[in-house]
Amino acid sequence: MRGAANTASRLSEQQLAKGLATHSSGNHAQAVARSAQVKGVPAYIVMPENAPAVKVAATRGYGAEVIFCESTPEARAAKLEEVVAEKGAYFIHPFDDYNVIAGQATTALELLQDGPGHFDILIAPVGGGGLLSGTALTAKYFSPNSIVLAAEPYEVDDAYRSFKSGEIQRNETTNTIADGLRTPLSEKTFGIILEHVSDILRVEEEAIIHAMRQVWERMKIIIEPSCAVPLAAVFSYPEQFKVITVGIVLTGGNVDVCKLPF
Amino acid sequence: MRGAANTASRLSEQQLAKGLATHSSGNHAQAVARSAQVKGVPAYIVMPENAPAVKVAATRGYGAEVIFCESTPEARAAKLEEVVAEKGAYFIHPFDDYNVIAGQATTALELLQDGPGHFDILIAPVGGGGLLSGTALTAKYFSPNSIVLAAEPYEVDDAYRSFKSGEIQRNETTNTIADGLRTPLSEKTFGIILEHVSDILRVEEEAIIHAMRQVWERMKIIIEPSCAVPLAAVFSYPEQFKVITVGIVLTGGNVDVCKLPF
Repeated sequence: MRGAANTASRLSEQQLAKGLATHSSGNHAQAVARSAQVKGVPAYIVMPENAPAVKVAATRGYGAEVIFCESTPEARAAKLEEVVAEKGAYFIHPFDDYNVIAGQATTALELLQDGPGHFDILIAPVGGGGLLSGTALTAKYFSPNSIVLAAEPYEVDDAYRSFKSGEIQRNETTNTIADGLRTPLSEKTFGIILEHVSDILRVEEEAIIHAMRQVWERMKIIIEPSCAVPLAAVFSYPEQFKVITVGIVLTGGNVDVCKLPF
Repeated sequence: MRGAANTASRLSEQQLAKGLATHSSGNHAQAVARSAQVKGVPAYIVMPENAPAVKVAATRGYGAEVIFCESTPEARAAKLEEVVAEKGAYFIHPFDDYNVIAGQATTALELLQDGPGHFDILIAPVGGGGLLSGTALTAKYFSPNSIVLAAEPYEVDDAYRSFKSGEIQRNETTNTIADGLRTPLSEKTFGIILEHVSDILRVEEEAIIHAMRQVWERMKIIIEPSCAVPLAAVFSYPEQFKVITVGIVLTGGNVDVCKLPF
């Protein structure tokens, strides 16, 4: 919500006039839909046809028009371009936008403000990289001694491969339960991540499900699989998190409660 | 947790020496188990054989010895008496104890302190009546203009029938998903409820499941069916909750996430 809301709040009346548009597998979709609702303008959301039904319903629940496309970055971009051309709506990119990144950065800022004073490590999930970039920039400016790590499913380890090779990589398949992390990085997020993130840890699907269940059962908070990925990394690489204070960014609770992995 | 913890904190070293015991379908079981663990003494918990597996596991997870019995008030009481005679443990009743009631009362007190200044209605679920009694006493002393309502499943409407008849009634069957609300009232809780509760609203099983799902999906909080009963009452009797400020006591998130009603 923070990324889209921050961007919407910075648009002129003219930019807003014909509504907002985006492509997203779900959380950003709802964020843009709700931001448009608050501003009293229409929202046009391009969603992949395999987006969870609960996310589609929630997006429509905020009054948005949902337009489906194939689940590839190209199909999303093409359909979005079509929609923007037809409707004249303002496109809020899910992550390749410094205002979106700044909005997402407030999550880690709140964590720093509410937390124990110092975090040795901050860890966030990485999909398109907006939340991770924001987390890294927050650490840079407000907690420069914190190491920033990212976590990503092995099944969509494009960010890991990009980070190691120095060039943006893509996923051939997106066979992960963490549906929010299927997108590749963008120029803006990759630049920030290369400079300010220390490492990217990859996790197995089973570890994601286990971490999600732990949070459900012990913290009583409903998180979606994408949101469980950093905790899965903490569980999967215990030697890296020994005797230190770890701040874990948990965001996203859009789960179809009729289709759980346990 | 509040009821058991408050009681345990008021026991002498001698009373605590041989451990704590109770009978409970689940949440009080865990509360006594954890209280004993904190005090460093053993816990003996009598649980009905149909208690959710997740509650049994959690109780054992706090180091307690679990002893099973049939799911009737008599069987619970008999087995508990046996255990207390054998072990010499101190029995913390799940609700028929003013220290337990005082502990539970702090829930509504926090609600009053954190809330909008005034609640027209406070509503809590009723099983044995400890939480409801505590809620009613908090209202009496700290918010005398708040009306206190209770909510209960039709399937175990003993409190409703007790309230209407002026005598403690029992349930012939306990065929409700709200497993924490199957127990009848006690002398102490019935006395407080008769004097300080305005009405008891009964809800259908489907309304409980709907309310539970709403909290899961919209608030992202994992609550158990018993905990959803007051919200189910708000949804079921909308005319009683129109244009007023309602404080809903939500407690209990012990759900077997592999066995959901949706």
